[in-house]
Amino acid sequence: MTPFKLTDELLAEIQQLIENRQNDSLRSLMEEVHYADVAEIIDELHEDQATYLIKLLDSEKTSDVLTELDEDVREAILGNLSSQEIAGELAELDTDDAADIVAELPKEIVQEVISKISDREHARDIVDLLRYDENSAGGLMAKELVKVYDHWTVLTCVKEMRQQAENVTRVHSIYVVNDQGILIGRLSLKDLLTASTRSPIRDIYISHVDSVNVNEKPEEVARIMSKYDLEAIPVVDEIGRLVGRITIDDIVDVIREEADRDYQMAAGISQDVEADDSIWDLTRARLPWLFLGLIGGLGAAAIMGGFEEMIARHAILFFFTPLIAAMAGNVGVQSSAIIVQGLVNDDLKGSVGNRLIKEMLLALLNGVILAVGLLVFTWIWKGSFPTALAISISLIAVIVVAGVIGTFTPLFLHKRGIDPAIATGPFITTSNDIFGILIYFWIARFVLGI
Amino acid sequence: MTPFKLTDELLAEIQQLIENRQNDSLRSLMEEVHYADVAEIIDELHEDQATYLIKLLDSEKTSDVLTELDEDVREAILGNLSSQEIAGELAELDTDDAADIVAELPKEIVQEVISKISDREHARDIVDLLRYDENSAGGLMAKELVKVYDHWTVLTCVKEMRQQAENVTRVHSIYVVNDQGILIGRLSLKDLLTASTRSPIRDIYISHVDSVNVNEKPEEVARIMSKYDLEAIPVVDEIGRLVGRITIDDIVDVIREEADRDYQMAAGISQDVEADDSIWDLTRARLPWLFLGLIGGLGAAAIMGGFEEMIARHAILFFFTPLIAAMAGNVGVQSSAIIVQGLVNDDLKGSVGNRLIKEMLLALLNGVILAVGLLVFTWIWKGSFPTALAISISLIAVIVVAGVIGTFTPLFLHKRGIDPAIATGPFITTSNDIFGILIYFWIARFVLGI
Repeated sequence: MTPFKLTDELLAEIQQLIENRQNDSLRSLMEEVHYADVAEIIDELHEDQATYLIKLLDSEKTSDVLTELDEDVREAILGNLSSQEIAGELAELDTDDAADIVAELPKEIVQEVISKISDREHARDIVDLLRYDENSAGGLMAKELVKVYDHWTVLTCVKEMRQQAENVTRVHSIYVVNDQGILIGRLSLKDLLTASTRSPIRDIYISHVDSVNVNEKPEEVARIMSKYDLEAIPVVDEIGRLVGRITIDDIVDVIREEADRDYQMAAGISQDVEADDSIWDLTRARLPWLFLGLIGGLGAAAIMGGFEEMIARHAILFFFTPLIAAMAGNVGVQSSAIIVQGLVNDDLKGSVGNRLIKEMLLALLNGVILAVGLLVFTWIWKGSFPTALAISISLIAVIVVAGVIGTFTPLFLHKRGIDPAIATGPFITTSNDIFGILIYFWIARFVLGI
Repeated sequence: MTPFKLTDELLAEIQQLIENRQNDSLRSLMEEVHYADVAEIIDELHEDQATYLIKLLDSEKTSDVLTELDEDVREAILGNLSSQEIAGELAELDTDDAADIVAELPKEIVQEVISKISDREHARDIVDLLRYDENSAGGLMAKELVKVYDHWTVLTCVKEMRQQAENVTRVHSIYVVNDQGILIGRLSLKDLLTASTRSPIRDIYISHVDSVNVNEKPEEVARIMSKYDLEAIPVVDEIGRLVGRITIDDIVDVIREEADRDYQMAAGISQDVEADDSIWDLTRARLPWLFLGLIGGLGAAAIMGGFEEMIARHAILFFFTPLIAAMAGNVGVQSSAIIVQGLVNDDLKGSVGNRLIKEMLLALLNGVILAVGLLVFTWIWKGSFPTALAISISLIAVIVVAGVIGTFTPLFLHKRGIDPAIATGPFITTSNDIFGILIYFWIARFVLGI
């Protein structure tokens, strides 16, 4: 396939067509464009142009476009649509996407919008989904699924399924429930393709079926689905009744968002921002950690002030402060990142004690290798063995301490129920800077006998 | 579902059963355990125990277990199996997973193993897949798919499909090809469920079908599939012939691995390691960037040596070196991380020039806010306005330069075809440390008139 590319020329052409109200040309131009690409176009248009285009196109397409838009663009466009128009869009969407949009609408118009959805079952499903926490399996799931009763025969099943399948974009599995609606098994479409039509479902269904509870965290659902290579998983309530289904495309989004968040945390960005957000949004996301860095820097300055006398006699020690601080920061980030990744992927085994011992040995090994190089180089460069020795011994000590802090902090936060990813960024760098400098000057004072 | 949890007790029980050769108990214990969980167990066993368990269990299960094992564990176990036994495992796997395993086998046994796969078509498909670069769509795809010719009728199609479906774990789409094998469209299973059996395929297929070229990069395939919410995508060769299919579960792995790699790069870890790898592996992954940090630190020391005279008179300036270096590093990482993420998610718009101007304004805003705080605090603390002013002005300059370097470097690397993620870790921190310190002392000298 030739990937779609939104060029400046294409954008200008579309804007021109909108300004000239050339509706037929617009419609035929957009017909060939995938909804995800239409969303890219809309994100770039002015609000009134975007609204015009959304109103012009068929809601079968624009409903999907709406789900793909940036949140602020969507909010602006929905603000320009009538309750009737919004209801028309919701009617075309799967219940999970529709519920996500309803949750963003101003409170005062929700009831009116819902009342205008003509398919009452669809409306009821959307309202049901509103009750679930966004950050749970219930908040991810859709009501669209294919469900059969165990007392049906394959014949009834196929007949009923044809009807149900009309509303389901992708049939993954056929879920089997008992009279109480409790999930008891599944049928694969393949089984159905190859099975005889006369057998009762009770005799042919597979009684093992993976499912998640409505209250499960999205990250855990993602872990289960990717570990077990599932493309869809049924969601059950507290007593085991089938209430919805989560599909892998939603999970791909969860995985991407989780990875983005961890990455941003490691980089010291405290909110979910993108390069194209406003300068104010970016400042709000970046300033808190920079402020923490500033406090840390002032702490380091205060510590160094306490060693002023030593510095007067051995000014050279000062030249190596940035080196020591940088190494402490780097080691801390490395070791915490490995732990955070282990926690995210759930593949950390063994006790905290063993892990700290391993990290100490590892840091010691790295530290000794680096310190020997530093010792030889500094001795030759500066000509003073005691100074070179003091700096090198400090380096080893600082690396070991930084490694231990970097290992312990995320494990501790995780145990306390705090997202350990927070520990990889400026937090660990800053605290390791301070500890590193303190250790450095202590050891230097001791070795040089000042 | 109750998630599987590998406890020490369970592990001990399994090891006991293996030692006592209680085969029936082992088999029945393992029957209920998902292959992904069996792999977790095997990863923890000694090599001879693991081999024993693999040989004991049915290859229908163990083949899937093998694909989930850590690479070194798999290598060890395969080394203990005969060519016949390995062929038996490969026979049970989908072609993509089988080809991945064959690619890991020692060269000298590959031919023998392949010759012992009894299903010759399966063997041929595996050999075909070996030709593709691991880092391409061809290296990801499987040969299992459901393909129909446009000159068939729905009746022929359903009959043929039943047979083809036997070999395909999950039927997503039915691909339609012409006489030359060129992909021309698709049929959805749902269409088939609801369509009449008499129409010819030519009249009912959907002529629009997304596909990727065999040479496409996995990251690009992942981007396309997640942008367009696809669960499977057909792969075509240079002249458009249908040669394979990629499913979303493989893409989930690509996305996870890509995110892990970017995260590790940002944290200064240069190879794909896990917390449970050996100390040597971890050292190899961590030492290169630490060494870079060491070089950078020595550079900083050399720079500071050049300002020795100034330092003698204004020792206080030295106290703020770690603060300046840390801020430069933090700002650099923040701005580069946002750019790298924008590049990965392909949502950067506008020119490089505009982006640099925006980052400069942003850094200026952050810098001024932080500098005002620093100025007031340092003035009160140290009592010298000129010194406080020199430090604060330097901070602004350093933050702006760090932001520009952090923005420019990943954009530059990306343009040169180098993975920009490399620019987020110690690389940017180290270079910003050096630039930051240099700028700091220059400005201090200028402001203080030394």
